[in-house]
Amino acid sequence: MAVYTDVQAEELADFLSNYDVGPLLSYKGIAEGVENSNYLVHTRRGYFILTLYEKRVDRDDLPFFIGLMEHLAQRGINCPQPVKNRDGEALGMLAGRPAALVTFLEGMWVRRPAAWHCAAVGEALARVHIAGADFPLVRKNALSVAGWRPLYERARSRADALQPGLCACIAAELDHLEGHWPRDLPTGVIHADLFPDNVFFLGDQLSGLIDFYFACNDMLAYDLAICLNAWCFEPDHAFNVTKGRAMLQGYRRLRPLEAAELEALPLLCRGAALRFLLTRLVDWLEVPPGALVRPKDPLEYLRKLRFHQRVKAVRDYGITV
Amino acid sequence: MAVYTDVQAEELADFLSNYDVGPLLSYKGIAEGVENSNYLVHTRRGYFILTLYEKRVDRDDLPFFIGLMEHLAQRGINCPQPVKNRDGEALGMLAGRPAALVTFLEGMWVRRPAAWHCAAVGEALARVHIAGADFPLVRKNALSVAGWRPLYERARSRADALQPGLCACIAAELDHLEGHWPRDLPTGVIHADLFPDNVFFLGDQLSGLIDFYFACNDMLAYDLAICLNAWCFEPDHAFNVTKGRAMLQGYRRLRPLEAAELEALPLLCRGAALRFLLTRLVDWLEVPPGALVRPKDPLEYLRKLRFHQRVKAVRDYGITV
Repeated sequence: MAVYTDVQAEELADFLSNYDVGPLLSYKGIAEGVENSNYLVHTRRGYFILTLYEKRVDRDDLPFFIGLMEHLAQRGINCPQPVKNRDGEALGMLAGRPAALVTFLEGMWVRRPAAWHCAAVGEALARVHIAGADFPLVRKNALSVAGWRPLYERARSRADALQPGLCACIAAELDHLEGHWPRDLPTGVIHADLFPDNVFFLGDQLSGLIDFYFACNDMLAYDLAICLNAWCFEPDHAFNVTKGRAMLQGYRRLRPLEAAELEALPLLCRGAALRFLLTRLVDWLEVPPGALVRPKDPLEYLRKLRFHQRVKAVRDYGITV
Repeated sequence: MAVYTDVQAEELADFLSNYDVGPLLSYKGIAEGVENSNYLVHTRRGYFILTLYEKRVDRDDLPFFIGLMEHLAQRGINCPQPVKNRDGEALGMLAGRPAALVTFLEGMWVRRPAAWHCAAVGEALARVHIAGADFPLVRKNALSVAGWRPLYERARSRADALQPGLCACIAAELDHLEGHWPRDLPTGVIHADLFPDNVFFLGDQLSGLIDFYFACNDMLAYDLAICLNAWCFEPDHAFNVTKGRAMLQGYRRLRPLEAAELEALPLLCRGAALRFLLTRLVDWLEVPPGALVRPKDPLEYLRKLRFHQRVKAVRDYGITV
């Protein structure tokens, strides 16, 4: 939950006067998102989400994120659509921060996904990959294999305080992944953070995808590995093969997976698990005093990593090549 | 900012199915309020605020709070109106907590009130006092003079860590107020917490009052004293006599103040200042580990208390008897 920057009614009204949205009627800080401040804004023309980009987001990346949402929305992906101001800009400044107004998406995120949700997410992810194919901007994935060792270095001296042996386990995994990380798989624009709280459902339909602030260019199958980790484990940390199958089949109905992608999937899942283990570990160890955000449990991702280390082939995820 | 209880989409949809509000379209935790969890809920029928009452709110008080909002709304006060379910009840259970759905009020709260806002608040407060006169339920003010010494006892051993001499200053003030607290002033239903974040404005109009969860029966002029403290001091803690005059004149345009009320006003302002100094001090000293709420500065109210201690008569607040 996060509202880091308080916005005054007068400055918000001023900011909105440069948009064709009618007068401001109300706004509320919303307790969602971790990196940025978000407000739900009501004007005479409707409801919008206002995001103020806080310091953890690199301002040079904003044109990529905002351009991508525009690009995907134009291609029929239900995602927030940036609203342009009278100067044709989707990015402005408010309360000393870069700020963007996007359309509001109806729908609820699912706390306990069922297999059909996983199937819908697999399909939606494939749609994003297909729709993103001709997006002209490029953003390197700062949190891919080359970004993991620096995170490990930040955490190593204190990692064993969380769980004895954690440091050695990460070091060994890092060595393995750096030595075997695939290089020739199909790449494109990936969401890179499609967790349940970033996917909305309305009734029995997936109604929208949000939070493109980790999107980047990387291997498409790596995005699927992130989703398998985020959606297909049970609260007791056991992998649910029915959910895995549903997600993978949903995905390949729209974008067939190449043999090399299927073969690499266990390794990509290990990498995806290590990436979230490492970022959560750093967040856990570096909670700033007075933080209003509760860090997420890193060890959840250690358990997922251990599962993938034991996987022999893609059939353990519920599908055959 | 506060969302203590996470609500699942399925259980919320279930809860709402007992209300005549149509299907659930979306809901967002909102970063407002300190005591309870609040969600902005969108259904086919419109927007609502859903409040889950957390443990700091006494469940026996809920009929008073909800009944009062209903009573005031029926008498033309713009306040959230409780929505009744199909059993005619405005109070239900959700996620293990008592929960109520109320109508959504448009408007924004003002971070930097001007004198005209203070005048409007004075008028609105008088309207509440008049409209509340025939409200049949009664709730004792647990945070009036009899409630202050227990708070002082909780804080006394550590108060001087915040500011040397604070403990003695509070003790002396408490003795004075207990000895001189007025007894025969007009009483009725008071809001008791009408701070700027509980008053909405839309354009140049006051559009609504929210958060009746401290409302109780007490001296009406004490409510005005709380508002003078909350609205009429500048960020540098100086009292703004123009704002004070505006508020008091706004109030007495609708409900004339008796001579005894005017005479008691400096003392009531001291009491109101001590009440918020004490509750903020206890909150400051007792922040639970991992709290997601930042405590407010108690010393702001020490400075307000010191101002009122020097006040000779009501003319120092900008009006004459």
